[in-house]
Amino acid sequence: MPAKKYVSSSVIRRLPRYYRFLAELQKEGINKISSGDMSARMKLTASQIRQDLNCYGGFGQQGYGYNVSELRREIGEIIGVEKKLKAIIVGAGNLGRAMTIHFDSSKNGCELIGIFDINLQLEGINIAGVEVRHMSKLGAFCDKEKPEIAVLCIPKESAGTVSETLISCGVKAFWNFSSYDIHLHYDDIIVENVHLADSLLTLAYSVNNDKGRDDDI
Amino acid sequence: MPAKKYVSSSVIRRLPRYYRFLAELQKEGINKISSGDMSARMKLTASQIRQDLNCYGGFGQQGYGYNVSELRREIGEIIGVEKKLKAIIVGAGNLGRAMTIHFDSSKNGCELIGIFDINLQLEGINIAGVEVRHMSKLGAFCDKEKPEIAVLCIPKESAGTVSETLISCGVKAFWNFSSYDIHLHYDDIIVENVHLADSLLTLAYSVNNDKGRDDDI
Repeated sequence: MPAKKYVSSSVIRRLPRYYRFLAELQKEGINKISSGDMSARMKLTASQIRQDLNCYGGFGQQGYGYNVSELRREIGEIIGVEKKLKAIIVGAGNLGRAMTIHFDSSKNGCELIGIFDINLQLEGINIAGVEVRHMSKLGAFCDKEKPEIAVLCIPKESAGTVSETLISCGVKAFWNFSSYDIHLHYDDIIVENVHLADSLLTLAYSVNNDKGRDDDI
Repeated sequence: MPAKKYVSSSVIRRLPRYYRFLAELQKEGINKISSGDMSARMKLTASQIRQDLNCYGGFGQQGYGYNVSELRREIGEIIGVEKKLKAIIVGAGNLGRAMTIHFDSSKNGCELIGIFDINLQLEGINIAGVEVRHMSKLGAFCDKEKPEIAVLCIPKESAGTVSETLISCGVKAFWNFSSYDIHLHYDDIIVENVHLADSLLTLAYSVNNDKGRDDDI
């Protein structure tokens, strides 16, 4: 069934969580689950779960619950896990290298086709089976290979010019670790910002205010 | 003014974002800002901003707006940026190394006091001024130094036993990159999970469904 015209960001953000949770259930050999049981295990209300899934047409059957593998397959399809979007990493430092692990499997909807770094000493080395190229080759590479996603693992200071180059070469989405506000400069670009410093500050707040949280599992 | 008894997780998650945004304004030399202008720049509604800040007593003055540096100082105090909670990293691979940068400054409320890894070859090396110790020394180190926060940059498979050790040594909060569900096993432990794979899947969804998002800046 097609998705509703408008699906809120909160619902979208929960899809990967359902997808991950359902994989756990599969590992445990659980074949079907009620929204009540999902609720208890995911710390979401049963009503929230039903509402979320109803955005995509609903999948459960009254009184039966959800078929785990079917639901996971359908959510995977909605996300586009099998599509293998072409992605490149810009910045082959520790963070860039760490991020390669997210392209290792067929699980994450993306395929890593290139890694770039400004450091000439890294040119030619192989990370997770992908060759590191010098930044000077970024434009030509993008023209030819047409990556759709760029992972920015570079300092904020260089992210402006790099993202400009990437966008001019057709990159339309960024997984952005740079803290540079790409979205303020380009309206039609898709950006997933990862603000790790914000996450650490949130933890510091929780410790300092002795506040556990149950919304983020 | 003291915080309200209950502050929602969404508000708490936005505090670091305000803190970061206000630092940007300071860099630009902006001394005061209305909630309307903040709204336009942060892509939150003015009413949302006022409500968020009112959770902590409010800081603006009707018709004047917010004093940027004062507001930033106060939010920093609420978060506890100056408290320097003692933190250790477990796992000195690429991700663990990349995370050390978040302890470099006095900006993030935490001080990195130790790094641990199971790999004997890493023992004794220095990362960002901190010595890598072998995992066998984790218990004794924690007993002595009493870190409050542990950053788990280890595989899910080993996170269960490692978190058990850490909790038994008094660690009360985790910045968790391991995908292991600590919170399911310990009720009174504070956990900030970072699910990078979920973030990448969210981006893949957005690209596949041609959906930009404006909630996450």
